[in-house]
Amino acid sequence: MSFLATRRRVEFRDTDAAGIVHFSAFFFWMESAEHELLRAAGVPVIDREQVGGADVTASWPRVSAACDYKSAVRFGDEVDVRVSVADIGRSSVTFAFRFEHERGVVAEGRIVAVRCLLRPGCKPEPVLIPPDIIARLEPYRGG
Amino acid sequence: MSFLATRRRVEFRDTDAAGIVHFSAFFFWMESAEHELLRAAGVPVIDREQVGGADVTASWPRVSAACDYKSAVRFGDEVDVRVSVADIGRSSVTFAFRFEHERGVVAEGRIVAVRCLLRPGCKPEPVLIPPDIIARLEPYRGG
Amino acid sequence: MSFLATRRRVEFRDTDAAGIVHFSAFFFWMESAEHELLRAAGVPVIDREQVGGADVTASWPRVSAACDYKSAVRFGDEVDVRVSVADIGRSSVTFAFRFEHERGVVAEGRIVAVRCLLRPGCKPEPVLIPPDIIARLEPYRGG
Amino acid sequence: MSFLATRRRVEFRDTDAAGIVHFSAFFFWMESAEHELLRAAGVPVIDREQVGGADVTASWPRVSAACDYKSAVRFGDEVDVRVSVADIGRSSVTFAFRFEHERGVVAEGRIVAVRCLLRPGCKPEPVLIPPDIIARLEPYRGG
Repeated sequence: MSFLATRRRVEFRDTDAAGIVHFSAFFFWMESAEHELLRAAGVPVIDREQVGGADVTASWPRVSAACDYKSAVRFGDEVDVRVSVADIGRSSVTFAFRFEHERGVVAEGRIVAVRCLLRPGCKPEPVLIPPDIIARLEPYRGG
Repeated sequence: MSFLATRRRVEFRDTDAAGIVHFSAFFFWMESAEHELLRAAGVPVIDREQVGGADVTASWPRVSAACDYKSAVRFGDEVDVRVSVADIGRSSVTFAFRFEHERGVVAEGRIVAVRCLLRPGCKPEPVLIPPDIIARLEPYRGG
Repeated sequence: MSFLATRRRVEFRDTDAAGIVHFSAFFFWMESAEHELLRAAGVPVIDREQVGGADVTASWPRVSAACDYKSAVRFGDEVDVRVSVADIGRSSVTFAFRFEHERGVVAEGRIVAVRCLLRPGCKPEPVLIPPDIIARLEPYRGG
Repeated sequence: MSFLATRRRVEFRDTDAAGIVHFSAFFFWMESAEHELLRAAGVPVIDREQVGGADVTASWPRVSAACDYKSAVRFGDEVDVRVSVADIGRSSVTFAFRFEHERGVVAEGRIVAVRCLLRPGCKPEPVLIPPDIIARLEPYRGG
């Protein structure tokens, strides 16, 4: 089991009037960690595919995002984020996230992204994930 | 089946470089709709409970938030949000959300909030939801 | 002197651990109000211009944004926003904002936007504001 | 002339449908850099002051925030942020910010914060900055 570890500090902007971090901040941290993993793996967040002679933008819109909160963090706290690839389907990748503060689990999250062609004015069109991208993601497989 | 209906316009701040609304915006809309439902029901987002003679702050931290995305919306689009109470437990309330644009479903979400006492410097402590609050939420049961 | 009046409620997301609205929220409200004024005036936020036979995207990037804070607002408060056109230059429009809560001034802000052509991969290129757009903005002169 | 240098990567959340970073992101980066400077200087963002025998919360609400934009940055770009103390008044500190990408200036900003006592339910009350805090800020004078 493998993962990418990163760390974020709770900024004042991330807090709310209850004095703790706002639940939305975890989704932003998930996005950052997901993109760090992609960069580390050498997979572009946005790239181009040749489709029938045309050069089309491809990216990874999310079809699902979820987070379970176990405990609160506060302004100035450091949060350790672990991201791994929990599953690779034909078009989709599931990323799993674990947030810790001082070794206690703060939250766990999950994002499902689907590889899509993005043509201007059209709905995103899911496509097979190219084999070289799957190979680059495999080292980050975990739980 | 009952619900509260509200409407939001996609602001520029809600969009991202893919030209569509960022996935995080739906969580902000869920929070706004949840709070609109509480206001309509006459349930304060933050209130006080008498506990053993002391006056303690009570609120509704989330233990879970999730969203499934079906389709994209863009800058300037109007989004119809329906929020209802999907479940009421001993300490928790589950809110269900449905987002539509021009009558097509854009996304569906779910937030679980737990009634907690918030004492300074302590972890949030889950408590039973008072019967009068349950009575106020019942009319919004749906989902 | 003329203006567009709009109203926003302070959402929980807008607050911070100091218990009041975060200073950044005012910039989001300015953007929303600026765009409401443009919509009311019939000026598209993003449109197309014919330039030498080509069809080029035009929009209004900001070159300056500023806010002075007089007083705080809190979760659930309603904020009255007044936006007017303070100045129209050859390429630029200055919007002035005034935020009130219960008739007391909370903050005042200013945004300068410049009409630009946006060609893919190029720096935004400032252009003269077309006369029909100036005519549509004139009724909102104030501030 | 002295400053604190820090670096931020443009996250997807920071971008908008114009394909570039949203103007609001710079205010979040300013806040982060301001707080990094305070941490480096050993000045707490939130602390306590003894006032007439009582223990009162003190912090630094902003009275002014401004940014001038020179050029755009895009998703994935790294932004170098320089923050320095431009001025120290009796109650206020002015922070100056300079944002660069690949050595070109992207934006310049300014925040004025005022040391205030924060009593629950009262308006923030400006107070003199204690001499030891001034001494800690002096090494970051610049700009």
